[in-house]
Amino acid sequence: MHFIKNCWYVAAWSHELEPGRLMSRMVAGESLALYRTSDGTAVAFEDSCPHRRAPLSLGRVEGDDLRCMYHGMRFAPNGVCNEMPGSEKIPAKAKVRTIPITERDNWIWVWLGDPNRADLGLIPEGFGSDGQGWKMNFGQIDYAANYELINDNLCDGSHIAFLHENTLGKNMGRRFCDEHPTITRLPRGVRVDRNFIDQRVVAPWVKTPDSRVDVLTTYDFLVPGIFLFRTGFYEPGTAARIEEGKLTAPPYFERVDQQAVTPMSNKESRYYFAAAHKLQPGLPEMLGHIFGLMSRAFEEDRVMIEAQQRNWDRYPDARPIVATPHDEAPLIMRSHIERMLAAENGVLP
Amino acid sequence: MHFIKNCWYVAAWSHELEPGRLMSRMVAGESLALYRTSDGTAVAFEDSCPHRRAPLSLGRVEGDDLRCMYHGMRFAPNGVCNEMPGSEKIPAKAKVRTIPITERDNWIWVWLGDPNRADLGLIPEGFGSDGQGWKMNFGQIDYAANYELINDNLCDGSHIAFLHENTLGKNMGRRFCDEHPTITRLPRGVRVDRNFIDQRVVAPWVKTPDSRVDVLTTYDFLVPGIFLFRTGFYEPGTAARIEEGKLTAPPYFERVDQQAVTPMSNKESRYYFAAAHKLQPGLPEMLGHIFGLMSRAFEEDRVMIEAQQRNWDRYPDARPIVATPHDEAPLIMRSHIERMLAAENGVLP
Amino acid sequence: MHFIKNCWYVAAWSHELEPGRLMSRMVAGESLALYRTSDGTAVAFEDSCPHRRAPLSLGRVEGDDLRCMYHGMRFAPNGVCNEMPGSEKIPAKAKVRTIPITERDNWIWVWLGDPNRADLGLIPEGFGSDGQGWKMNFGQIDYAANYELINDNLCDGSHIAFLHENTLGKNMGRRFCDEHPTITRLPRGVRVDRNFIDQRVVAPWVKTPDSRVDVLTTYDFLVPGIFLFRTGFYEPGTAARIEEGKLTAPPYFERVDQQAVTPMSNKESRYYFAAAHKLQPGLPEMLGHIFGLMSRAFEEDRVMIEAQQRNWDRYPDARPIVATPHDEAPLIMRSHIERMLAAENGVLP
Repeated sequence: MHFIKNCWYVAAWSHELEPGRLMSRMVAGESLALYRTSDGTAVAFEDSCPHRRAPLSLGRVEGDDLRCMYHGMRFAPNGVCNEMPGSEKIPAKAKVRTIPITERDNWIWVWLGDPNRADLGLIPEGFGSDGQGWKMNFGQIDYAANYELINDNLCDGSHIAFLHENTLGKNMGRRFCDEHPTITRLPRGVRVDRNFIDQRVVAPWVKTPDSRVDVLTTYDFLVPGIFLFRTGFYEPGTAARIEEGKLTAPPYFERVDQQAVTPMSNKESRYYFAAAHKLQPGLPEMLGHIFGLMSRAFEEDRVMIEAQQRNWDRYPDARPIVATPHDEAPLIMRSHIERMLAAENGVLP
Repeated sequence: MHFIKNCWYVAAWSHELEPGRLMSRMVAGESLALYRTSDGTAVAFEDSCPHRRAPLSLGRVEGDDLRCMYHGMRFAPNGVCNEMPGSEKIPAKAKVRTIPITERDNWIWVWLGDPNRADLGLIPEGFGSDGQGWKMNFGQIDYAANYELINDNLCDGSHIAFLHENTLGKNMGRRFCDEHPTITRLPRGVRVDRNFIDQRVVAPWVKTPDSRVDVLTTYDFLVPGIFLFRTGFYEPGTAARIEEGKLTAPPYFERVDQQAVTPMSNKESRYYFAAAHKLQPGLPEMLGHIFGLMSRAFEEDRVMIEAQQRNWDRYPDARPIVATPHDEAPLIMRSHIERMLAAENGVLP
Repeated sequence: MHFIKNCWYVAAWSHELEPGRLMSRMVAGESLALYRTSDGTAVAFEDSCPHRRAPLSLGRVEGDDLRCMYHGMRFAPNGVCNEMPGSEKIPAKAKVRTIPITERDNWIWVWLGDPNRADLGLIPEGFGSDGQGWKMNFGQIDYAANYELINDNLCDGSHIAFLHENTLGKNMGRRFCDEHPTITRLPRGVRVDRNFIDQRVVAPWVKTPDSRVDVLTTYDFLVPGIFLFRTGFYEPGTAARIEEGKLTAPPYFERVDQQAVTPMSNKESRYYFAAAHKLQPGLPEMLGHIFGLMSRAFEEDRVMIEAQQRNWDRYPDARPIVATPHDEAPLIMRSHIERMLAAENGVLP
């Protein structure tokens, strides 16, 4: 398994890690035990007791500490063993590896690489939700597929015209493949801007003649697989009037998506997705509808991508693939990951 | 996986491939997408889009073409891409590999090797059924076993005396192992002739004293695993009177079996079987009874052969096995396959 | 798979091998077919017909012989083929490998190594039960784990204080980890003696003030994984009065456990366990209660040990583990197995 080590991976939603409970997570080939100390701070250990490799996630939280429940060794949040039952002396090597961990935007992030390089500034700026102003729903799906196949999918929306023709792409026909977004390479990712001008949208907030609006969308997709998406529905003509990136009027309706693709093993990945929209006076709550549509569409993705993975397994000789103009963003993302992997392994990119 | 490439494999029953629908089949280690064009002609593609290896069997039939439903590439029956959404030019390498395919005797046949050598004359002459004169039933069973173990089974009927003592061998006792058939080597298979003289058969068409008949059977078993079997029930004394292969009277009853063993992977095989008998005035329809008996017997085979496969897996050192006189036909079939594999791989047989 | 061959493994409980029936067992990587001859003597064959590797356990017992039910070869208890259907001559190599087998203490034992070294004196002396005087219950559990991880568990009772805090360790608190047993290395195992002085035990046979008793326990754990355990509940003060190993009064209550850990493959093991107690006039039958408690505790073991196995699989580089004083007995057992393996493979221990 070759994964970038020196980057922040999403290991869980914050709300999944309940006080007093232990959680086991597989992130980029490493098995982690997560818990919260008495003040709520998240801790991540390698999920293996240094005594006899019992999983620490089968242990017990005791105050700030974690006790292995096979033979009773107890570890402080810094990983140091502070009780070894039946032994008066505790050897120095009775220490479990700790993993840098933090929380931001409703996600728990872990850093598997060199702890000295665990720069919090490298965490992508998400949206998050405190339940005020924005309403956010959370979901996750496990894939029997390599995470880069999911990255490819998220970087290239042209598949919406075909794979999601009855869900996400229903009212937009082939605009997703016939029109091309603006692709911008970022230092650790790619930006995709795309305006659907004069698009018919049937929704309670659309009161224009013929239900026409301008739909302005933009997202950043960042290493290792963080997807941050904004959609705004505007008065017709807005897109044409944009000057120097400034909008002339607020949107009728605005929503965001934040998603993370986390490799577990080479062929297993976890996909965290959240959708949110602004709560606006006079507008009904739309999130249940949006989330239901997304869930159906993501199931279409899962079936296709897992089948695609099985084809890659069948043809391990990596015969060349044919690229289309829509592959630009996916290929940028793959080149970032390749470059970072090469750098970590001492190979010139 | 080592399979003969230059031979015709059965990929499906003809009736399985419905107009407008795609079907995925694994044949000798290769994954195929099958469909019919608007005039009903069968097409076989490698089940992998040249764009990003999405399975084409998850696509859609559009007229004569097949569209990949991930990013929308469309392919003509000759494998050439004739639409690449979002792209004005279509690169020449946007082409999916096509596999020679034909239909005969209710089966769909594919040729995985050199298309220039796909000689239709090499397809064994089966029976088939148009529903007139003959009534045919169709079934199939998947085996978790290598196809040659199933070939062995079909080439040597002596196992009927033991494995099928309560089903196919019920009334014939040990004749299946104590009497020996006549074995003839064929250019691509083996012929097995066997007469059960003066055998008691209880059936509506047997009106002889003591229900005695002569049962004359003959089958060809042909590369890669095609089994074509004729059984006739005759007046007692018929077998003794055969002169130069000519029968002196028509049978009381006549039936045929056509079966095909298709390797999917090294340890997965699909077994297609059909049974038919002549519709004769005054005789009740017997096929339900015959087919029920066969299905029970084939389940006995499956249990034994899959267990045998597990023993081969356990002893990969291929310790020599002890042969009996009944192994003559199975060993002829294995020698054909070995010889053809050697020829394909440039090794002298 | 590396297992000791020259030792006796438990292959089954005696009562599992019913007359006239065949049983398949996997022991230390070898697949065996077991049956009883007409006088009840147990026979063990390699579970593979020398003809075409059909499993003999799918065959039929015929008097003293076993018939393979694929093509009908029949074998005498000494493994020699005495009938080959369709063949007048039987080649000398038509012989199945026989495995030394015996029964003792309700167990069936097999010897996979050199038959000339199959010394019955090497079978550990168990307890067994003829249903008179002692009442014994029998159970078994399959583990998805290497047998040495189960051996480790049985050699070190300190885990009872943690893993079994609500079952086996419920009333003894941390005495299991805070107090140390006496460990004695044996020629093919380890002895563990441990007295719980002045322990509160609530049971019908305890009539002392405050329900205090001395609990004296001792067990031998012997290669490859045989666990023989005695527990006696005595008048308080008994442990202190033991002189030269002699007890001054009979126990209030006495019970034994006999268990066997049998590797099937590297990561699959079968755990046979039996518990018994003396039937005493005036005492209720306790075995149902004891057995229920044990079954719950063994399930706690299984969950932990299988999870531990998965961690070993994840870290195949065998990073060093930290040992505690309680690891003395497990490490003695591992050294025995390592020494015997080295001797069998011609390596100096």
